[in-house]
Amino acid sequence: MDLPASSMLAIKKTEAAPGLTWQPDTEIPTYGPRDVLVRVTHAGICGTDRHIYEWDAWSASRVKIGITTGHEFVGIVEAVGDAVTRTRLGDRVSAEGHIGCGHCQPCRTGNGHICESVDILGIDCNGCFAQWVSVPEENIWPVHPDIPDRLAAVFDPLGNAVHTVMAAGVSGKSVLITGVGIIGLMAVTVAKAAGAARILVTDVDPKRLELARELGANEAFDATSNWVPEARKATHQRGPDVLLEMSGHPAAIKSGFRSLRNGGTAALLGLPANDVSFNLAEEIIFKGAKVLGINGRLMFETWYQMENFLLSGRLDLDPVVTHEIEMEDFEKGFQLMQSGEGIKIVMRMPNPNE
Amino acid sequence: MDLPASSMLAIKKTEAAPGLTWQPDTEIPTYGPRDVLVRVTHAGICGTDRHIYEWDAWSASRVKIGITTGHEFVGIVEAVGDAVTRTRLGDRVSAEGHIGCGHCQPCRTGNGHICESVDILGIDCNGCFAQWVSVPEENIWPVHPDIPDRLAAVFDPLGNAVHTVMAAGVSGKSVLITGVGIIGLMAVTVAKAAGAARILVTDVDPKRLELARELGANEAFDATSNWVPEARKATHQRGPDVLLEMSGHPAAIKSGFRSLRNGGTAALLGLPANDVSFNLAEEIIFKGAKVLGINGRLMFETWYQMENFLLSGRLDLDPVVTHEIEMEDFEKGFQLMQSGEGIKIVMRMPNPNE
Amino acid sequence: MDLPASSMLAIKKTEAAPGLTWQPDTEIPTYGPRDVLVRVTHAGICGTDRHIYEWDAWSASRVKIGITTGHEFVGIVEAVGDAVTRTRLGDRVSAEGHIGCGHCQPCRTGNGHICESVDILGIDCNGCFAQWVSVPEENIWPVHPDIPDRLAAVFDPLGNAVHTVMAAGVSGKSVLITGVGIIGLMAVTVAKAAGAARILVTDVDPKRLELARELGANEAFDATSNWVPEARKATHQRGPDVLLEMSGHPAAIKSGFRSLRNGGTAALLGLPANDVSFNLAEEIIFKGAKVLGINGRLMFETWYQMENFLLSGRLDLDPVVTHEIEMEDFEKGFQLMQSGEGIKIVMRMPNPNE
Amino acid sequence: MDLPASSMLAIKKTEAAPGLTWQPDTEIPTYGPRDVLVRVTHAGICGTDRHIYEWDAWSASRVKIGITTGHEFVGIVEAVGDAVTRTRLGDRVSAEGHIGCGHCQPCRTGNGHICESVDILGIDCNGCFAQWVSVPEENIWPVHPDIPDRLAAVFDPLGNAVHTVMAAGVSGKSVLITGVGIIGLMAVTVAKAAGAARILVTDVDPKRLELARELGANEAFDATSNWVPEARKATHQRGPDVLLEMSGHPAAIKSGFRSLRNGGTAALLGLPANDVSFNLAEEIIFKGAKVLGINGRLMFETWYQMENFLLSGRLDLDPVVTHEIEMEDFEKGFQLMQSGEGIKIVMRMPNPNE
Repeated sequence: MDLPASSMLAIKKTEAAPGLTWQPDTEIPTYGPRDVLVRVTHAGICGTDRHIYEWDAWSASRVKIGITTGHEFVGIVEAVGDAVTRTRLGDRVSAEGHIGCGHCQPCRTGNGHICESVDILGIDCNGCFAQWVSVPEENIWPVHPDIPDRLAAVFDPLGNAVHTVMAAGVSGKSVLITGVGIIGLMAVTVAKAAGAARILVTDVDPKRLELARELGANEAFDATSNWVPEARKATHQRGPDVLLEMSGHPAAIKSGFRSLRNGGTAALLGLPANDVSFNLAEEIIFKGAKVLGINGRLMFETWYQMENFLLSGRLDLDPVVTHEIEMEDFEKGFQLMQSGEGIKIVMRMPNPNE
Repeated sequence: MDLPASSMLAIKKTEAAPGLTWQPDTEIPTYGPRDVLVRVTHAGICGTDRHIYEWDAWSASRVKIGITTGHEFVGIVEAVGDAVTRTRLGDRVSAEGHIGCGHCQPCRTGNGHICESVDILGIDCNGCFAQWVSVPEENIWPVHPDIPDRLAAVFDPLGNAVHTVMAAGVSGKSVLITGVGIIGLMAVTVAKAAGAARILVTDVDPKRLELARELGANEAFDATSNWVPEARKATHQRGPDVLLEMSGHPAAIKSGFRSLRNGGTAALLGLPANDVSFNLAEEIIFKGAKVLGINGRLMFETWYQMENFLLSGRLDLDPVVTHEIEMEDFEKGFQLMQSGEGIKIVMRMPNPNE
Repeated sequence: MDLPASSMLAIKKTEAAPGLTWQPDTEIPTYGPRDVLVRVTHAGICGTDRHIYEWDAWSASRVKIGITTGHEFVGIVEAVGDAVTRTRLGDRVSAEGHIGCGHCQPCRTGNGHICESVDILGIDCNGCFAQWVSVPEENIWPVHPDIPDRLAAVFDPLGNAVHTVMAAGVSGKSVLITGVGIIGLMAVTVAKAAGAARILVTDVDPKRLELARELGANEAFDATSNWVPEARKATHQRGPDVLLEMSGHPAAIKSGFRSLRNGGTAALLGLPANDVSFNLAEEIIFKGAKVLGINGRLMFETWYQMENFLLSGRLDLDPVVTHEIEMEDFEKGFQLMQSGEGIKIVMRMPNPNE
Repeated sequence: MDLPASSMLAIKKTEAAPGLTWQPDTEIPTYGPRDVLVRVTHAGICGTDRHIYEWDAWSASRVKIGITTGHEFVGIVEAVGDAVTRTRLGDRVSAEGHIGCGHCQPCRTGNGHICESVDILGIDCNGCFAQWVSVPEENIWPVHPDIPDRLAAVFDPLGNAVHTVMAAGVSGKSVLITGVGIIGLMAVTVAKAAGAARILVTDVDPKRLELARELGANEAFDATSNWVPEARKATHQRGPDVLLEMSGHPAAIKSGFRSLRNGGTAALLGLPANDVSFNLAEEIIFKGAKVLGINGRLMFETWYQMENFLLSGRLDLDPVVTHEIEMEDFEKGFQLMQSGEGIKIVMRMPNPNE
């Protein structure tokens, strides 16, 4: 390895308190024989990063102090371990942030996204809010040259949206998306590209509802209104064929299920903060509903689907990836998210080779 | 129509109070152009009938006073409507008790079991605890001559078990059945016949647990014990591949989901009396679980599967269908169920032709 | 029944020879208790009708002399049998032309399209090239008011395209359509609406290839060229994910399979005139390919999907339904098809009420 | 690495002619950083090995001269590469013989069995008819202690049978197996364990037919007889729900498809030597049949299923694994297969540590 620097810039969680710390002179990650060292060029700020920044209850219970945060990125391979077989120096790559153990049943059957002892980049090990990041070659995804950096930097949340949409199956169907935050908005354009015949959305934020309409939603309901009868009216009184739950909010989950048609499919991605109380008999059993828990991205079927959709030109992500900022302005990035002015923020990392 | 009687015996719900009434002289059902009039020879007493007998909150809110109860039966066709096309006088038949509307989307796509405005025999219209019952030809199932009456009389609950097992898919899998009442016990023998590699059950009743073992369960846990670690131990520490929830009990539902392996499938048949509170994030979303609401029987895929299993000789139902009694002894039938002495009780109807 | 005429116009096969006969004064169809009598307003001419017109070997072996041809139509209900339950006089309807027996396993499990003893309208019984047609209520499809007559008249072939596309599953996938005749062209716009990421087509007719491009095909190959390497190049050297075979031509079938990627899906709709010779080992077994035989339309799942797609505004059928003519000009209709000038021809039937 | 020998025994293909050569003093395989060196204790002789022994056209076109043959084995890990992460010295292991490239789409989506550039142990690289074999850790399967060596040595063909049976889905179905050679016989016991309601088999060898009956086949037909009507009779005149084609013989393939019921599933494992001619219209398209090409074993879903079935005690493999011989008697092993006296032959390798 012949890197142009002996230390690097990184954004770390250094204290069990709100905020993240700019580290101008931290160690470049080591890498094992199966690992790849990537110089990060662009990184997306995730809602999870915001939780870590704000230090909510979940973060406090899960995140290691001292860790470099961030898990959405694109960059250039600058070093590879001895047992790396197919990744080459200079490759432009992104990576799956779920690092599977490799030997549990899910990992060995193509379901590493639900590995029984998964490590997540930027949560369980050092992440990509830095000039270099080390990831197992197994997790590396070579980026197609026609896909721009600002999109390649957000494969992780886009992959969540693609996984949810494709798991439910939306071709020719009416689709209800409850919650159009970052991933919910992405899901609107993905669902449309994937063949949804009709898209309904709910949210509490009128700006997001408007944006969802621009991206292809046929109906956008104020989540605080009595929207279930409207959703049924918009679907020949049957109810939507598919529910994509992306809010994690109990009221949205319950109303979503109530509106779902008999025999419909619900894919759940949003994480409720607490237990949710359900009328299982009415909303799932008598309805003959199918419910799918969605986590991460299929490795790597979701990635191929995502590439196909991006190259097809059928995704409209410009209204979602609203800002590109410099790494050193990361505080501003979090503020843009908090104020609602920005949706997806991408950071540019300074190139130490220049 | 040339029937041997001008009135018939029936067991009816005549008052909004516990009990059922023996009616020695009630009207023989009329039948429309698409209907078939069946002389009932044998009828099974369902858990639902017991609810109606005991007049619980659900019954009080749903069941029409004056109705003939019962929906599990076998009998002989004695008259057919003018537009009946394939059913013949003398056919030995059973029938699907869910009467679909025939024109909603579920009905028109082979999913009549989740019809948007279903009528259920013995609940919404006169049932089979009588000497004759009228059902639409669409619902008639011709009974294979090799299947004895006592089993043909219980196709309805057996079909619930088959539907649940087959929807989940158990071939080569470890299967946990929470709740081994009538349908849960049937599910043990069905799961074994359908290829389950390992069967675990839970229940509060030691006698039922013992019976489940006889029918093929590898492990039988006291539902009040801390059985989740045992269930994991019995499945290579992964957790069962499949959960068949047949108790409707909140604790069983929660523990069932907790024990389920990542990527597992849960099929829910048991009806909780009230809302159930769930940790959706841990038990369904992170796990990537699939949850299926199960209602009734697929019309008529479940019936073909049931016939195949019965004719294969791989089902052991003798320990489940414990008693055959005369129709007039119906009170005793309910007492056998209440005391736990009997499991599935089949009544024989007197033949008015003799 | 109170019809405005005692006889009707019809187009019949009256001789075992090429041609069809204009019958100005034929009997109005009778209808049974479960049947619906529809006054036909528009009927599409199918490729099958052309075979019957040209009297090819298949027609000669299958079609009854004396029959009224035609099976694609839309019209108005003018009479119903006594046992009809939900269809009303005045309803604007189309119908599924496959009349299932209703009691074989396929019919009773939602798969009437592969009924073991199916009758086909206009082949096995009198069809819709007439002022009235009688069909079982079971086959009636109420037409949504927003769908124009010229499209409602061609639900049958559009349904073939939708069935094939949806059975294969095209969302986010690269799709190869071999043969862009009427149904192949429809499949292009359906595949695009259903979410295909990339569409390749082959045909021998440059005009059809051009039309396919207009409808959304990304690549259009001359079927007589060496197009397999081009198809691989257009799909990252993997080969298409999905093959929709719509030509029935042996060379297309073989090249289609050769180009298919490992693990791909082939849906076969085109009917080869003779046996086709296959390298099963290379093209199906080693590849782990999935092959689906496609026949008719799912009853009625395909019809719901078709309605959804039409109402979504995502189908472009104008370039395919090229001509509307009067019933009496039917000879011209066949000539337009034979010359290649027309693709799908729709006839308007004179209204005897006017 | 501290091995007890500096050279080893191996059975190699040393000439482009029939036969295999006993090599008493060949090099112990080297192993890379991701590889595992296994001391082979038992190895199964595959039909493929017999082809290589007999040097048929396929072998001559595919197999490298100088290679150590064999791909079915169990053994003990005696050395591991530097980048091996989870395999430990002393582990008792078998291995998947299909070595995927790791970066094509099939490999990266859990479908390494249809890798676009697969290497096969004992065909493309040195195999297991030797005292040591080197395989990538990715391919290693830890063997459960309750599974005896003679069965662990034949996971490869057993996995073919399990893959075929499970891909088709046999639970509650009637299953026709055309060809009961080694894998076909294994498929009989696997199909029974997996829940098949009825099993029919065909073969030309009366001894094999008799064995199939012992293993659970309900009907066994002489493949040279007119068995299709018998197969329909044995399945309520519908035809089998599932065809497992294991002969590769054109007549069996054609008759198998002819007998299949409408809407049935055919899983093809047997490899025809030449192209096969098909009536696609009648046998696949009009029938709405589903055809699955089956190759290798799902990595590693099939292996988990196989382990589950073996541990369930529901497989009867004793009549199939007929002989255990010493490695030096390998010529006798091939003779037992050729004469039909033996079915599956397992060799024991001498332990160089003793």
